[in-house]
Amino acid sequence: MADAAQQTPRVAVLGASGFAGALVARLIDRHPFFRLGAITARAEAGMRLDELYPHHRVPSVLSEPDVEAIADAHEVAVVGYPHGASSEAVAALHARGLLVLDLSADFRLRDDATYREWYGDVHAAPELFGTAVYGLPEIHRGALAGVREGGRLIAGPGCFPTAAILALAPLARAGVIDEVIVDAKTGVSGAGRKLVRSTHYVDVSENVHAYGVAGHRHQPEIRQELAVAGMDAAVQPVFVPHLVPVDQGELTSCYVRPRRAVGADEVAELFADAYDGEQFVEVTSAEPGMRDVQATNFARLRAHVDPRSGHVLVFATIDNLWKGTSSQAVQCLNIAYGRDEDEGLR
Amino acid sequence: MADAAQQTPRVAVLGASGFAGALVARLIDRHPFFRLGAITARAEAGMRLDELYPHHRVPSVLSEPDVEAIADAHEVAVVGYPHGASSEAVAALHARGLLVLDLSADFRLRDDATYREWYGDVHAAPELFGTAVYGLPEIHRGALAGVREGGRLIAGPGCFPTAAILALAPLARAGVIDEVIVDAKTGVSGAGRKLVRSTHYVDVSENVHAYGVAGHRHQPEIRQELAVAGMDAAVQPVFVPHLVPVDQGELTSCYVRPRRAVGADEVAELFADAYDGEQFVEVTSAEPGMRDVQATNFARLRAHVDPRSGHVLVFATIDNLWKGTSSQAVQCLNIAYGRDEDEGLR
Amino acid sequence: MADAAQQTPRVAVLGASGFAGALVARLIDRHPFFRLGAITARAEAGMRLDELYPHHRVPSVLSEPDVEAIADAHEVAVVGYPHGASSEAVAALHARGLLVLDLSADFRLRDDATYREWYGDVHAAPELFGTAVYGLPEIHRGALAGVREGGRLIAGPGCFPTAAILALAPLARAGVIDEVIVDAKTGVSGAGRKLVRSTHYVDVSENVHAYGVAGHRHQPEIRQELAVAGMDAAVQPVFVPHLVPVDQGELTSCYVRPRRAVGADEVAELFADAYDGEQFVEVTSAEPGMRDVQATNFARLRAHVDPRSGHVLVFATIDNLWKGTSSQAVQCLNIAYGRDEDEGLR
Amino acid sequence: MADAAQQTPRVAVLGASGFAGALVARLIDRHPFFRLGAITARAEAGMRLDELYPHHRVPSVLSEPDVEAIADAHEVAVVGYPHGASSEAVAALHARGLLVLDLSADFRLRDDATYREWYGDVHAAPELFGTAVYGLPEIHRGALAGVREGGRLIAGPGCFPTAAILALAPLARAGVIDEVIVDAKTGVSGAGRKLVRSTHYVDVSENVHAYGVAGHRHQPEIRQELAVAGMDAAVQPVFVPHLVPVDQGELTSCYVRPRRAVGADEVAELFADAYDGEQFVEVTSAEPGMRDVQATNFARLRAHVDPRSGHVLVFATIDNLWKGTSSQAVQCLNIAYGRDEDEGLR
Repeated sequence: MADAAQQTPRVAVLGASGFAGALVARLIDRHPFFRLGAITARAEAGMRLDELYPHHRVPSVLSEPDVEAIADAHEVAVVGYPHGASSEAVAALHARGLLVLDLSADFRLRDDATYREWYGDVHAAPELFGTAVYGLPEIHRGALAGVREGGRLIAGPGCFPTAAILALAPLARAGVIDEVIVDAKTGVSGAGRKLVRSTHYVDVSENVHAYGVAGHRHQPEIRQELAVAGMDAAVQPVFVPHLVPVDQGELTSCYVRPRRAVGADEVAELFADAYDGEQFVEVTSAEPGMRDVQATNFARLRAHVDPRSGHVLVFATIDNLWKGTSSQAVQCLNIAYGRDEDEGLR
Repeated sequence: MADAAQQTPRVAVLGASGFAGALVARLIDRHPFFRLGAITARAEAGMRLDELYPHHRVPSVLSEPDVEAIADAHEVAVVGYPHGASSEAVAALHARGLLVLDLSADFRLRDDATYREWYGDVHAAPELFGTAVYGLPEIHRGALAGVREGGRLIAGPGCFPTAAILALAPLARAGVIDEVIVDAKTGVSGAGRKLVRSTHYVDVSENVHAYGVAGHRHQPEIRQELAVAGMDAAVQPVFVPHLVPVDQGELTSCYVRPRRAVGADEVAELFADAYDGEQFVEVTSAEPGMRDVQATNFARLRAHVDPRSGHVLVFATIDNLWKGTSSQAVQCLNIAYGRDEDEGLR
Repeated sequence: MADAAQQTPRVAVLGASGFAGALVARLIDRHPFFRLGAITARAEAGMRLDELYPHHRVPSVLSEPDVEAIADAHEVAVVGYPHGASSEAVAALHARGLLVLDLSADFRLRDDATYREWYGDVHAAPELFGTAVYGLPEIHRGALAGVREGGRLIAGPGCFPTAAILALAPLARAGVIDEVIVDAKTGVSGAGRKLVRSTHYVDVSENVHAYGVAGHRHQPEIRQELAVAGMDAAVQPVFVPHLVPVDQGELTSCYVRPRRAVGADEVAELFADAYDGEQFVEVTSAEPGMRDVQATNFARLRAHVDPRSGHVLVFATIDNLWKGTSSQAVQCLNIAYGRDEDEGLR
Repeated sequence: MADAAQQTPRVAVLGASGFAGALVARLIDRHPFFRLGAITARAEAGMRLDELYPHHRVPSVLSEPDVEAIADAHEVAVVGYPHGASSEAVAALHARGLLVLDLSADFRLRDDATYREWYGDVHAAPELFGTAVYGLPEIHRGALAGVREGGRLIAGPGCFPTAAILALAPLARAGVIDEVIVDAKTGVSGAGRKLVRSTHYVDVSENVHAYGVAGHRHQPEIRQELAVAGMDAAVQPVFVPHLVPVDQGELTSCYVRPRRAVGADEVAELFADAYDGEQFVEVTSAEPGMRDVQATNFARLRAHVDPRSGHVLVFATIDNLWKGTSSQAVQCLNIAYGRDEDEGLR
């Protein structure tokens, strides 16, 4: 029954005990087209996912990851491993012919040298560099549509780059970015499920602080994609994330010094050109707030020209786990399989 | 007994039912030197302050404001009225010879035209423009020390300007600010006690959004004071506040495009010159967080030079109600009376 | 095409600018069977609902309530007015033959005297007392199934009673409740959208307190329904709600002094008898948490016999706006129309 | 200079990297009479306390615990070790003649069998059982005043027992407690600094759940002390704590079934008898909230007789780290040294 199988591709989720993997499992489990297959986790193997995450209500049992067995029984794999740990499994599944969507940073950067500068010498499959489609549908829809016949590898964007690139791509394309500051605010779920000092409730509550000031790994990713879109490759975005006492949510406040004077009308037109017709991007005239998009695949943007300084300000908000990671992954798979882009996401 | 009175000056707090006024009342009530006199509030007259704010534990009864009676019985008045509503009471008390510290914006701007541009034509005492000392002790200590013999008027800075000016004054003095973005995050108490949509718990929780993007009144105040410090007066800071789900706390993330290349050592030296010996300013090498200064008069700063862009990043955190408003007011009064600057504040 | 119209009944939502009404509008707007008609609000008439609640993404425009026009164009009306204000509109729509589901307390109590004791003399349609089906599907499913042919009136339960009755009905039926304490914790959305002191972020954050200690209106409702289920009508439950810094969520901790010794096995059996096969009630062996059910129609329960005191402890959590109000209303309508009970709710 | 030393006793804090120990260190560091000596922590030895806790602003360096060296140089030791780990160090310091205040549970229970039932066979100094003064000043002030000449050992109460006993002691003394339910709500800091699943921000936010339902170790402690006060020793309090999304704060809601009918006046009198003149206990007519006492040594109570059920309801709130642990410890030391009870605590 190869046909029926093709009609409902089985999707494995590796690393399904993490926040991102678990959410992918839930979205696939409820998806009208895809079918959830194996969900894996090393430490929690044997547990049911709804014991770890009651609110996801996925009754499947987590199993030890077994790449060969997964490759035999699935057409698609979503890999939710930490950075560096992902490349080996991704390469193995990819070699067996699966469509692989990697949620880690391992295949986002197209350039080996840049990867090594930021992540070190930990990659298991450098030969795949540059073969992945960067899984931001509003920017790379065409490539995603062809990915099953093409490289069969999708690199899910980082959550900050998702918001920053959606905010800045219209200006990058128009060639007006001379300098850009990205001041990002993120909820705690972005730090993952691991128990670290900075996710203890007592450290988070009544607190906001910057982190990664000396250099955050999402900077080269933002730079790469904006350069692809048209920004002068020499521009070095300043990117500083801040942790805020929120569970799920992300807001990037972008401050662009333009190459030339730009007016409010021109900016409005650039955003209309970019996003009219996009069902998951909302351009508004009010300041977007994290609540507006929580637990959805929407990005919500506002662009504004500051008359005093001439700077262009763009505010973009997403749910870091949804549009920033897991629901965007499902959006990518929908496109790859020619389904309605919002299937399983409304 | 003029002498004894001088030894323990009586301080009246007008508008003591608001967050800022109530905190001033508490700090004065516990102060070893000053003595709390009348506390006033129109709507809540007759109530005890500890009914409104049990945690402040000030058992005094709020009374209707009566400027004449207050002037007769006090040497100092702190006025916690809303912007525009303050100038009339301030002028009357000032005319009666009291030292007046105004927490509103009414006397912060030195220039009538700038005031009108941002606040409209609502000022009751424009003749006092330019006579007030701007109550930021680390910048205007000398003027504060002479204020009783001088203009007898202190304009308490806005909470955002307090953090932004402390963060940027060292760079302004060195003349290196070419452009500056101030991305501020503030807790909800900064919006005051009034019941408005944006302070409803359900709107704040799990939410972060910018506001006042079209122009916030703290922008001209920041610009004025940085220009006084040495910044080119033509520079128009970009200032955007964001509301975060925090009660008390404020973080300003400042991004300075320098006029000339500056190195980390030079920046470190500028901040050391400015703040070594300041007991309420902490310059750290870790990212400062709101919790570090909550319910204190401290400001905590970190300056960093971004090697990629050459920008200078400065992060400054304060408690918006304490150092941003009420405890800073007490610090000013301590200086005006020649007391130890931290009296009643540790 | 009367037939087709019957197949997709139009549902009006009166009072759609409140939290509960707005959520009903969203659920109906996405519902596969029902069709959203008029949504009304006095103060916000003319605004789009997605301006007030961007995250609901309902693009309909709010209109002034016009009972006659609504009656002409709808088969069902959900009324989200405050207590006391509801009865007049409900009676008018009911008289016009609509199926009316009232979210207020106006038709929950079956007894005029009890209503007057707790709410005063404000009811516009006392003749309808006792005709409404109490809209708790797990208890009154049969009556709900017949409501269109019967009284055409459903009284949506209070959020606290929903959780408390689900927690206690199995014990009430078995006649073992001698005394019962219901200590409830609720998120702030339960207080509604109105701006009051107790919903200001600064009053809620880092705070928990009891309220309504002298007598909360949900007490007689809980008592009435438990008596219907079999509890001795003389028992006076002690009911005390507490406000916690949570947006949506409710937990009732119930402490039952039993009439006779009951064992863990017996209690487990009572709950299995009551809820096996219920798709929206989860009986677990772990302590249920608000997060487990947030933004769902689920109730999650744990019953435990304390071996030291012999008391039976039952913990029940729901989302106060979903199962506690709005999604439960849709569940009732699904039953009334013979649809799958979870249609539009998964 | 033995005299001078006695005038300013040096206090060592063992386990000063935990929340409770760190706060004791801060309070002693600012105390007008005591002097902070060694502060110890195994894992963080060598770090400054203000690196771990910037907001405490204690610049001392943490050292490895060395009982002999500590005994030589200090007159008082406060031990902030986990349960079971404390008894060995406490016994050694006590044997060397120091006044020891233990913050753990190791010396709270007076009875070996009860201790073993709840904590197991882990105690290093069972011979000291029953020699410690239970460090709740409002109940055991006399014994605390004599502790330096007596047993030289103070067992700091648990945070829940502090609130519950203050709430219930007046009723226990009057012999009216027939049954009692204690439903407690606690902030996350009560769980300590350790990184565990239940303190991850994402698990705490928008969540409330009971825990320890099968039996919490504070139950026998509450029972022991209420029996000492006069409650029938056969009564088994039902005690259930709930975790709420709060940093510091605790509220115990107590529901007492009385042995005989009691009226509101009698209850008011019992509480007045117990607490009139207590400077740290506030009996109010409004529902006490956690914010009212946060970061203070106050307990705030309200007692109410429910006319329907005849039950007596008592609500008591404290800051779990302050009055529940660390500031109460300082209050005990003040009493032991004959100082004003609020020295260093206002």
